[in-house]
Amino acid sequence: MTVAILSLVAGLLGLVAAAMLYRWIVQQSTGDPLMGSIADEIHLGAMTYLRAQYTKIGIFALVVAMLLSMQHGFGTSVAFLMGALTSALAGLVGMQAATKANVRTTAAAREQGAGAALLMTFNGGAVMGLAVASFGLLGLGILFFALSANFATDPNSASTIWGFSMGASSIALFARVGGGIFTKAADVGSDLVGKVEAGIPEDDPRNPGVIADNVGDNVGDIAGMGADIYESYVGAMVAAITLAATTAASELTHYFGAGVSRPMLLALPLALASIGLVSSLVGIYGMSAFRKQGPERALAISEFSAAGLFLVLTLLMMTIFGYGWSLFAAIIAGNLAGIAIGRAAWYYTSSKPVTKIITASKTGPATNIITGLAVGMESCAVPILVIVAAIFVAHQTAGQYGIAIAAVGMLATAGVTMTIDASGPISDNAGGIAEMSHQPPEVRAITDHLDAIGNTTAATGKGFAIGSAALTALALFVAYKEAVELAVGKSVIMDITEPRVVIGVLLGGMVVLLAAAMTMSSVGRAAMEMVTEIRRQFREIPGLLQGTAKPDTARCVTISTDAALREMVPPGMLAVLAPVIVGFFLGPVALGGMLLGSMLTGVVMALMMANAGGAWDNAKKAIEGGQLKGERKGGDAHAAAVIGDTVGDPFKDTSGPAMNILIKLLSIVSLILVPFIT
Amino acid sequence: MTVAILSLVAGLLGLVAAAMLYRWIVQQSTGDPLMGSIADEIHLGAMTYLRAQYTKIGIFALVVAMLLSMQHGFGTSVAFLMGALTSALAGLVGMQAATKANVRTTAAAREQGAGAALLMTFNGGAVMGLAVASFGLLGLGILFFALSANFATDPNSASTIWGFSMGASSIALFARVGGGIFTKAADVGSDLVGKVEAGIPEDDPRNPGVIADNVGDNVGDIAGMGADIYESYVGAMVAAITLAATTAASELTHYFGAGVSRPMLLALPLALASIGLVSSLVGIYGMSAFRKQGPERALAISEFSAAGLFLVLTLLMMTIFGYGWSLFAAIIAGNLAGIAIGRAAWYYTSSKPVTKIITASKTGPATNIITGLAVGMESCAVPILVIVAAIFVAHQTAGQYGIAIAAVGMLATAGVTMTIDASGPISDNAGGIAEMSHQPPEVRAITDHLDAIGNTTAATGKGFAIGSAALTALALFVAYKEAVELAVGKSVIMDITEPRVVIGVLLGGMVVLLAAAMTMSSVGRAAMEMVTEIRRQFREIPGLLQGTAKPDTARCVTISTDAALREMVPPGMLAVLAPVIVGFFLGPVALGGMLLGSMLTGVVMALMMANAGGAWDNAKKAIEGGQLKGERKGGDAHAAAVIGDTVGDPFKDTSGPAMNILIKLLSIVSLILVPFIT
Repeated sequence: MTVAILSLVAGLLGLVAAAMLYRWIVQQSTGDPLMGSIADEIHLGAMTYLRAQYTKIGIFALVVAMLLSMQHGFGTSVAFLMGALTSALAGLVGMQAATKANVRTTAAAREQGAGAALLMTFNGGAVMGLAVASFGLLGLGILFFALSANFATDPNSASTIWGFSMGASSIALFARVGGGIFTKAADVGSDLVGKVEAGIPEDDPRNPGVIADNVGDNVGDIAGMGADIYESYVGAMVAAITLAATTAASELTHYFGAGVSRPMLLALPLALASIGLVSSLVGIYGMSAFRKQGPERALAISEFSAAGLFLVLTLLMMTIFGYGWSLFAAIIAGNLAGIAIGRAAWYYTSSKPVTKIITASKTGPATNIITGLAVGMESCAVPILVIVAAIFVAHQTAGQYGIAIAAVGMLATAGVTMTIDASGPISDNAGGIAEMSHQPPEVRAITDHLDAIGNTTAATGKGFAIGSAALTALALFVAYKEAVELAVGKSVIMDITEPRVVIGVLLGGMVVLLAAAMTMSSVGRAAMEMVTEIRRQFREIPGLLQGTAKPDTARCVTISTDAALREMVPPGMLAVLAPVIVGFFLGPVALGGMLLGSMLTGVVMALMMANAGGAWDNAKKAIEGGQLKGERKGGDAHAAAVIGDTVGDPFKDTSGPAMNILIKLLSIVSLILVPFIT
Repeated sequence: MTVAILSLVAGLLGLVAAAMLYRWIVQQSTGDPLMGSIADEIHLGAMTYLRAQYTKIGIFALVVAMLLSMQHGFGTSVAFLMGALTSALAGLVGMQAATKANVRTTAAAREQGAGAALLMTFNGGAVMGLAVASFGLLGLGILFFALSANFATDPNSASTIWGFSMGASSIALFARVGGGIFTKAADVGSDLVGKVEAGIPEDDPRNPGVIADNVGDNVGDIAGMGADIYESYVGAMVAAITLAATTAASELTHYFGAGVSRPMLLALPLALASIGLVSSLVGIYGMSAFRKQGPERALAISEFSAAGLFLVLTLLMMTIFGYGWSLFAAIIAGNLAGIAIGRAAWYYTSSKPVTKIITASKTGPATNIITGLAVGMESCAVPILVIVAAIFVAHQTAGQYGIAIAAVGMLATAGVTMTIDASGPISDNAGGIAEMSHQPPEVRAITDHLDAIGNTTAATGKGFAIGSAALTALALFVAYKEAVELAVGKSVIMDITEPRVVIGVLLGGMVVLLAAAMTMSSVGRAAMEMVTEIRRQFREIPGLLQGTAKPDTARCVTISTDAALREMVPPGMLAVLAPVIVGFFLGPVALGGMLLGSMLTGVVMALMMANAGGAWDNAKKAIEGGQLKGERKGGDAHAAAVIGDTVGDPFKDTSGPAMNILIKLLSIVSLILVPFIT
C-alpha cells in the first residue's frame, strides 16, 4: 500500500518534470520560417500517422478487451485498456515533444552553439523517457493500490495485472512493427531513387520522400522504441509481482529467510522503479551542468550518475527495510548486464568488426554482405554470455523471483536510458532540417556531430532493448509456468525431451522466423511503392530536380502510412494467434516449449540483425568519412557499403526490433491463456 | 545375431555392387586427350586434398581414440576408429569414382548422347551412395555381431557403439567444413576475378581457379555431403539401438505390447537399413531401364521405386515377425517426412519465391539480398511443420524409440538418395570439362541440362540432409537423457524453466551462431587469398587472358587446400569443446539444454541458409536464361543477381551444411561425456 502511494508520487513527479521540460522546449526559438515550415510538415506527418495507427489499434484493443472481460473478468479487461492507453499516451507525448525539439535543436545550433543544441535534443528525448517511466509507474501503482491486499493472500489475484502488461504489449507490437515498416519504407525508398539513381544527397529537399524519411525516424525510433521499452518496463514488474504472489512460501524462505515477507517481495518492483525514476530525474536534470563536458561524456555521465544513484539508493532502502544482500545481488546483476550488453553492441557496431566490413567493401557488395552477416552472427556471443551470467547470478541468489527482479533492476533507470535513445532520432531530424533549410556548414557540423553520437547511442540502445526483452520474456515465461502449476493445482513438468516440449520449441523458432520474414518482405514491398512514387514525381513534376519546383511530400507520407498500417497486421495476427493455437491444440506444455524456442531464436535473430545493421551503417559512414584510402563517396567500395547499409536497414530498424516485442508478447499472451488451456 | 549376419550380407552385397559399377565406369571412354588431362588435374587435386585432410583428421582421431580408451575402455575407442575409418573410406571410394565419372559423362554425351551421359553420372554417384550405405551397415553389423548379446541384458553396454557414431561424426565435421570452405573459396574467388573483373565465362580454361573450383565440387558436395549423410545414417541407428537397450521395460510394453521383445527392437534398425540397401540397389540398377523416361523422371522413378519397395518389404518383414502397426507408422512418418522436406526445399529454390527474387533484382543488389533473406527465413516453416508432424506421429505410436526409428526410416534408403545427390556435382564437373575442352554446343547442351537437374537435386538433397540431421540429433538427444538417467540411477528432470536448462539453451544457440560466423568468415578470408592469387596470375603471366599461355592451376588448388585445412580447425574445436566445457562446469542438465538450443537454432539456420542460397542461385540462372524481359547477362538485374548468388554460396555450401554436422556432433559428444559428468 505504502509502495503504491510512493510509486504514484514518483510517477506524478516524473510527469510534472516532463511537462516542465516540454514547456521549456516549446518556448525556444524555431529559427527561420523555412525551418519552421519543414518542421511543421514532419510534425503533421508524425501526428497523422500516430492518430491513424492508434485508431486501428484501438479497435483491436476493444475487441481483445471484450474477449478478456468475458473470460477473465472485468478487472483484467480494465487493466488491459489501461496498459494500452498509457503506452499510447507515452508515445503520443514523447512524439509531440520530439517533433517540437528537432527544429529547435537546429535553431539552437545556429543561434547558441553546440552545448545548447545538445541540451535541446536531450530534453526532447527526456520527455519521452520520463513519460515511459512515469506512465508505467502510475498505471501499475494504481492497480497495485487497488489489488495489493489480495496479492499477498490469493496467488490467483495476480492475473488481473497481466492485463496491464498485455495492453502495453499489444500497443508495442503494432507501434514497433508499424513504425519500423514506415521508417524503412521511406528510408530505403528515398535512398534507392534519390541517392542511387538521381545522385542527390540524403535529406535533399528535392527528394519527395525526404519528409516521410524524417517522419519515420520519429514514429519508428521514438514511438516504436518507446513502446518497446515500455513493454519491457511493465512486463518485468508484472512478472516480478506475479512470482512474488505465486511462488511457494517454502522457496521464498529458502532464498530469503524468514525476515523477508511476501508483501515485501510484492512491493519491491514498484519501489525499485520509483527509485529508478527519481535517479533518472537527477541524471536528466543534471544535463544542463554535464553538457560542458562535450556531448559523448555528458551522455555517459548522465546515464552512469543515474545508474550509480539508483544502486546507492536501492542499497540504502534495502538495508533499512531488511531485504538482505541476495536480492541486491540480483538487482546489480540485472543492472550491470544491461550496461554490458549495450557496450557489446557498441563494440560490434563501431570497432574492429566495422573495419572488417570496410575492408571487405573493397572487393564489392557480396563480400561486404558476407562479412556483415558474419559480424552479426558473431555478435550474439558476448550478449548471450552476459544474459547467461545474469540469469545464473540472479537465480543463485534469489531463485526464480530473482530473474524477474534482475529484469526490473535492468529497467529501473529506463527513464534516462530511453531519454538518450530518443534524443538520437531528434538529432537525426535536426540534421535533416538543417540540410533541407540550407543551413551554413558550421550549423551542419554541430547537428552532424550530434547525429553521429545518436547512431552510437542507437546501437547501444538496441542492445539494451534486446537484453531487457530477453530477461523480461524469461521472467514472464517463469511466471507462466508458475501460473500453469497454480491452475492445475500440482507441479507440472516440462521436460526438454518430452515430445510436446520439443514440438513447441521448434514451433516457437518457426514463428520467430516467419515474423522476421514477414517484416522483411513488408519493408521490401512498401519501399517498392515508395520508389515508384518518387520516380513518378521526378518524371512528372517539371523542374523538380533543378530545384525550381516543390515535390509532393505529403503523398509519400501517405504511402508510408498506408503501407505501415496494412503490413503491420499479418505479423501482429501471427504473434497473437500462434500461442492461442498451440495452447488450445497442443496444451500448456507445448506452449511452454514454444515460449522457450521463440525466446532463444528471437534473441539470436534480434542480436544478429541489430548488430549487423549497425555495423553496415557505420562502415558506410566511415567510408564516406574517408577512412578507406583512395576511396571516396561514389566510388566502388562506397557503393558496396551503401548496398550493405540498405540491407541492414530493415534488419536493424524493422525485423530485429520486432523480435523483442514478439518474444514478450508471446509470453504475456500465454500467461493470459493459462486459465483456458489448463 | 541373425540381423547382424543379414546386415553384413547386405553390406557386402552393396560393396560388390559398388565395385562392379566402378569397374564399369573406368572401362568407358574418356574422350579426347585434352579432356583426359583436365580430368586428371581434377582427380589429382581432389585426391591430394583428401589425403591431406585425412592425415590431419587422423592425428585428431588418434588423440581422441586414446582419450576414449583411457576413460571409456578399449571397445569404445576401437568402435570410434572404425566409425572414422569407414566414413573416410566411403568418402575416398566415392571421390575416386566421381572423379573418374565426370570426364566419362562428357565423353558419353559426345559419343553416345543424353541417355548414356545420364547413366554415367548416375552410376558415378551410385558408387558413393552404395559406399555410404554399405560401410555403415558393415561397421555397425560387425559391432552388433560382437556386442548384441550384452545389449538385451545390460543397458550400459550400448555405450560402446556410441564410439562408432562419434567416429563418423568427427570425420563428417572436418570433411563438411573443410570441403565447404575449399569449394567456396575456389568458387567465390574464381567468380569475383574471372566473371566480374575479367569478364570471362565460368569454367573458362584461362581462369587459374577453374580446376580448384571443379575439385571443390567433389570435395565439398560429394565427400562432404557423403560424410554428412553417413553421420546421420549411423547416428540414427545408434540412437535407436541405444534407446532399445535403455528404455524401461514398462514403457516398451506400453507402446508395443508383450509381443515385441527388446531384442526385436534392438534388431530393427539394422533390419530396416538392410532392407533399405537392397531396395536402393533395385533403384540404382533399374536406372539403365528408367533412363529412357528422360533424366528428371528417371531420377524420380529410381528414388520412389526404392522408397516404395522399402516400405513394402518392411511391412512384409514386420508382419512376419510380428512387430505390429505402431512401429510401421513411425517408419512411414520418417520416410515421408524426408521426402516432404525435400519437396519443400525444391519449392523454395525453384518456384514462386525465386520469381520474387528475380523481380527484386530489378531494383538492385540490396532488394535482391533482402528478398532472398526473407525467402530463406520463410522457408523454415514447412520443413519445421513436417518435422513436428513426424515427431508427433512417431512418438504417439512408438514413444521415444519411435523418434529414433523414424529417423532410421528416413535414412534407410540413403543409398539411392545419396546416389542422386552425388550425381549432381559429377554433372557439374562434366559441364566444366566440356567447357574447358571446347566441346561443341550439342555436347554442352546435354551436360548443361544434367547440370541444371543437379542443381534441383542438390537443393532437395540439402533439405533431406537437414531433416535427417534434425531427427538424428533429436534421437541422440533423447538417448542422451536416457543415458544420464541410467548413469545416476534415477529419473532426471530437465525442466524448461530450470535456469541451468535456460542457460544451456542460450549457450546452444550461441555455439551455432558462432560456428556459422566462423565458417562464413573462413570463406571470406580464403576467397580473398584466391582473388589475390588469380589477379597476380592475370597480371604476371603474359598471354594468359589471350589464351596463349596456361594458368598455374595447381597453385590455386594448393591455396584452397591450405585454407580449408587451416580454417576447419577452429569451428571443429568449438564443436568438440563446447559440450565438454558446458558438461563439466554446468552439468548434465545444462548440457541437455544446450543440445536442445543448438538443435533448434541449427535447424533454423541450416534451412534459412540452404534455401536462401539455392533460391539466389536459381534466380541468377533464370535471369541468365532470359526470364526477365529486357534483361540480359551483364545487365544491372543480372549483376544484382550475381551478388545475391555470391552471398548465397557460403550460405548453402559451407555454413548451412556445417549446421547439420554441428548439431549431430554436439549430441554424440554429449552422449560420450555422460559417464564423466554425472
